[in-house]
Amino acid sequence: MDTRALDAYIRDHLDEAIAQLQDYARIPSVFHDVDALHRTADWVAEAFRRRGFDVVVYSHPSGITPVVWAERQGRRSDRVLLIYNHYDVQPPDPLDEWETPPFEPTRRGNFLYGRGVSDDKGHLISRLLAVDAWLAVHGELPCTVRFVVEGEEEGRKSETLQAMMDEHPERFQADGCIWEFGGVGKDDVPLQHLGMRGIAYFELEVKALKRDVHSGIGGSFLPNAAWRLVWALNSIKTPDERVHIPGFYDDVQPPTERDLELLSQMLDRLQDFEELLEPGQTFLKGETDPLTLYRMAVFEPSCTITGLTAGYQGPGAKTVLPARARAKLEFRLVPWQKPEDIAAKLVRHLQAQGFGDVQVRFLGGLHPMKMDPDHPFVDLVVETARDVYGRPMVKVPMVGPSGPAYMFVHKLGLPTATAGIAYPGSRIHAPNENIRIDLFEKGARHMARIFHAMTEYTPPVG
Amino acid sequence: MDTRALDAYIRDHLDEAIAQLQDYARIPSVFHDVDALHRTADWVAEAFRRRGFDVVVYSHPSGITPVVWAERQGRRSDRVLLIYNHYDVQPPDPLDEWETPPFEPTRRGNFLYGRGVSDDKGHLISRLLAVDAWLAVHGELPCTVRFVVEGEEEGRKSETLQAMMDEHPERFQADGCIWEFGGVGKDDVPLQHLGMRGIAYFELEVKALKRDVHSGIGGSFLPNAAWRLVWALNSIKTPDERVHIPGFYDDVQPPTERDLELLSQMLDRLQDFEELLEPGQTFLKGETDPLTLYRMAVFEPSCTITGLTAGYQGPGAKTVLPARARAKLEFRLVPWQKPEDIAAKLVRHLQAQGFGDVQVRFLGGLHPMKMDPDHPFVDLVVETARDVYGRPMVKVPMVGPSGPAYMFVHKLGLPTATAGIAYPGSRIHAPNENIRIDLFEKGARHMARIFHAMTEYTPPVG
Repeated sequence: MDTRALDAYIRDHLDEAIAQLQDYARIPSVFHDVDALHRTADWVAEAFRRRGFDVVVYSHPSGITPVVWAERQGRRSDRVLLIYNHYDVQPPDPLDEWETPPFEPTRRGNFLYGRGVSDDKGHLISRLLAVDAWLAVHGELPCTVRFVVEGEEEGRKSETLQAMMDEHPERFQADGCIWEFGGVGKDDVPLQHLGMRGIAYFELEVKALKRDVHSGIGGSFLPNAAWRLVWALNSIKTPDERVHIPGFYDDVQPPTERDLELLSQMLDRLQDFEELLEPGQTFLKGETDPLTLYRMAVFEPSCTITGLTAGYQGPGAKTVLPARARAKLEFRLVPWQKPEDIAAKLVRHLQAQGFGDVQVRFLGGLHPMKMDPDHPFVDLVVETARDVYGRPMVKVPMVGPSGPAYMFVHKLGLPTATAGIAYPGSRIHAPNENIRIDLFEKGARHMARIFHAMTEYTPPVG
Repeated sequence: MDTRALDAYIRDHLDEAIAQLQDYARIPSVFHDVDALHRTADWVAEAFRRRGFDVVVYSHPSGITPVVWAERQGRRSDRVLLIYNHYDVQPPDPLDEWETPPFEPTRRGNFLYGRGVSDDKGHLISRLLAVDAWLAVHGELPCTVRFVVEGEEEGRKSETLQAMMDEHPERFQADGCIWEFGGVGKDDVPLQHLGMRGIAYFELEVKALKRDVHSGIGGSFLPNAAWRLVWALNSIKTPDERVHIPGFYDDVQPPTERDLELLSQMLDRLQDFEELLEPGQTFLKGETDPLTLYRMAVFEPSCTITGLTAGYQGPGAKTVLPARARAKLEFRLVPWQKPEDIAAKLVRHLQAQGFGDVQVRFLGGLHPMKMDPDHPFVDLVVETARDVYGRPMVKVPMVGPSGPAYMFVHKLGLPTATAGIAYPGSRIHAPNENIRIDLFEKGARHMARIFHAMTEYTPPVG
């Protein structure tokens, strides 16, 4: 089809779309700020209504923030495309490392900086720009487009989304689903992500004493919450990176030959990480072989301390025996490890090792997800990229992060693919998160083409 | 001697003295607040000048705050009593556990609450009340009294005090020295403290990455500063409470028979700590024998994690691979372990265990101190207590905390004893630090008697 008018619209309305993104990213929808999250949901619902979508704002007692569901019927085909996004963001700390304030989205040349501009607010606005182009140029969308935008992706467990799927499965029926993110890798090569690891996230807390005690008085005979925590953590993983929770590796399925073939096409992506290492540090286990490292990064589970808190953390030397200590502990899971199973095994392990005084709180879990790399819907998205990026997308069999994609792929049975605006310098979850505006434009152009390609899409039989 | 007039003066001027202490404790002289520390030094110097003392405010480039030295000649004897105090205090956090603000000293009945009222500002003001009583009743002090009040006791290494001792040893000459603290134990029994453990305090820091990374991306192949720190700490001490630094126990001298005899007189003091244990917690090593526990508490070295910091510490689940992690690590030393020696051994141990990436900063050290429990100056202080407390002081051969007493006892060769206003509920270094006003009065009365007893004191020969 002739996409020149669509592309022209997108180019001419780019500044306007970026201004909308700034509006959206100005709301500090950090995952624990319930008030800001509700205001953000209102903003999103209004953005859909303005574009003629039918909107459902779905709440459920099991969650804290609503899912914004929106649909606009297509006129050229019965095909349905489902698009998933989320409106919650990660906390902005450490605040002092931001060059401009995280919730004052700031444009500098080809970049827009701000918390959430890449993960995941920019993706949604870029997709809405594709919608706007179709509506302006053709007065309609070519296929039916359904958006699902939730607010419990970053720090919670998508409870409301899960409840909505159970209660209204019909709202999630589609011929294919576009995932929250997507974008280019090194050298601006567009990437198609076909799998995500799962996650099980915990807070461990030790309460040893009813209050802090002078360390000179109690240090030799009273229990120390920080030591108990350190020893408990040490029992979970040793410096050889082996996780010692019995049964932890039971459900790990190694990658297929096809997975490793796809992985081996993109080994240069790891080089960017070498410059992050402080002097004297190496990749884990001293590994240097790129394929092995890449395989570790995405096809092996991880066990990460993401936070430690105990006692005195200011300058100088406070002599205190900490009554309490806390750790945040995250596991990334590979097919087909299950978050609830890992949680049960962790609790049993700590009990068995004599750390029954370590309280375990399960803060959230998501299953791993894996798509057939050669599904026709995947190939539709891969091929439509060619016209925008000058080449088809490169298939990435698995990535390290997690998301609720499992529910779409394995629970709803929807073929799912990625398309978006991210690039390796996006700094998601870190200070100075940013997007490239040229990629924001490309993402909109790609999405406009996917809408059209859906009209010619034939689902596989069976 | 007839002490009725001195006691009456002290009783009649008690409220005035408490008001002075409130003034003094209102200055937030936390050890890292150099500006507040200098204002506090000015306050102290003025308190001495007002009482006719000669004052020297001594500064030295090796430290950050001055020593306030003050002397007033006695008229009845040539004996010289040296009194040591400090004007710096511990940080007040956790702030939200204070019932009244830490730097708004608040009187409630027989108690005064505020940071530093017990450690160590109340002791100084109580001693000044004894000085005031002598000056008001007799127009003079019976012996020469020298005060040394420093501002580098809590978070630093008494650098300025050490420099002053080296440069002006004559200012520290005395027949005996009264230490910063003292007071009663359980059931208001007055205690004479004869030894203090030493201390070596460190900050350990791991820098693994140049910046935080998304834990889903880097967790399986990039180094994690928090894990490195946990494993390094675990290599230092194991759950059996054994310190694994080679040579750590080399210089430990066990207590004498006389030490253990003295210790066995006061085993009931430990019972107060049982109520601090959270359900399921025990004293270390599950020990229950009181003499063994008391011996552990004061005659064994300790290794205490006093603080842990890494990554995300807020609510919920932030998915971050921490670039950096820090621990505060404190060792309490028993005779005759040496802080510098422990520092060198700690660094060598971490290197040898493969933790060369753990940076060790030595934040402060103090040697252990131990007095001959039967020295005549000690007995002078012990016996003068009888008239105030209804019984002589009970001799405590060693306590858990540390102080620069080593310099006075072992460097200057001064017999040193304790006398003061503390009690087991003082909560020093913790929220709701407080003094009992009846004990503040008793401390002043005891000190007034010590001044007089010095006129009849005969130092031992040799």
